[in-house]
Amino acid sequence: MEGEPTRIMIAVNESSIKKYPHPSISCRGAFEWTLEKIVRSNTSGFKLLFLHVQIPDEDGFDDVDSIFASPDDFKQMARRDKARGLHLLEYFVDRCHELGVACEAWIKKGDPKEVICREVDRVHPDFLVVGSRGLGPFQRVFVGTVSEFAQKHAECPVICIKRRADETPRDPVDD
Amino acid sequence: MEGEPTRIMIAVNESSIKKYPHPSISCRGAFEWTLEKIVRSNTSGFKLLFLHVQIPDEDGFDDVDSIFASPDDFKQMARRDKARGLHLLEYFVDRCHELGVACEAWIKKGDPKEVICREVDRVHPDFLVVGSRGLGPFQRVFVGTVSEFAQKHAECPVICIKRRADETPRDPVDD
Repeated sequence: MEGEPTRIMIAVNESSIKKYPHPSISCRGAFEWTLEKIVRSNTSGFKLLFLHVQIPDEDGFDDVDSIFASPDDFKQMARRDKARGLHLLEYFVDRCHELGVACEAWIKKGDPKEVICREVDRVHPDFLVVGSRGLGPFQRVFVGTVSEFAQKHAECPVICIKRRADETPRDPVDD
Repeated sequence: MEGEPTRIMIAVNESSIKKYPHPSISCRGAFEWTLEKIVRSNTSGFKLLFLHVQIPDEDGFDDVDSIFASPDDFKQMARRDKARGLHLLEYFVDRCHELGVACEAWIKKGDPKEVICREVDRVHPDFLVVGSRGLGPFQRVFVGTVSEFAQKHAECPVICIKRRADETPRDPVDD
């Protein structure tokens, strides 16, 4: 029964409270859930595929005043973004190495919900795990949820792991 | 890392084409997927919980002419329904015994989508697996889908396994 490992894609993002390189509460929860409930002791039966999607800034600038930006500033920002993303992924890759679970991790830019579905099409995981803040209908209207979009549109089974109630920050839209 | 087994609830129903005791294409697919992709060789790490929900007939009669029905006919029908349901569950329980995977199986009556959510509340599985016919939006409007309802309302993570395209019967609403 043990052939190719089951390939599980996990979408990961940064904490909106602690910022890079800290993972969000929900994606850390989804990762820990996958280890505890699915992988368990069968570390050779699974391969985890970590996808981090970075959202481009609307104007290409964060905290740099746009008036003073030069092409070099741009390059530097791109490098800095990439470094931050890699730092985030390191958290997951390190945990996998500790446990002896095979993994891959990569960064893409774009709208997370669309990029996740596109990467599912490209990589064909056996299923996708996404963390979710477990927002109510009222909050969801304003923030949109990647998990709902993926459940509807991704070309593979999707399991959505809600953040634990006792981990919800003061503002539930934070993560 | 191996403590209590991961408890996976799987909702199963009868084939609308072959009828009882045959399982539907989608729920058989969901079951096989769970074995192949999740349980794998780790047969002691999981316990499968099979729930079969029987839909009561609108008038309490199937093929019996209602004019001739007596209280005894009712009892007989109830017994027959139960026997059919048990026969359906036997398919899954037998497979689990063959493989050495722990399982439980039971029958409830009612509206499948509501009963499934209620049983999740009662039994607290780690997650729920439901098969789905993978109907398009047009077909879905008319038949409703248990999987979508469960993904929205069940109090545990839900993974929905779509029927394989090459297993779709001539009328995709059949299963």
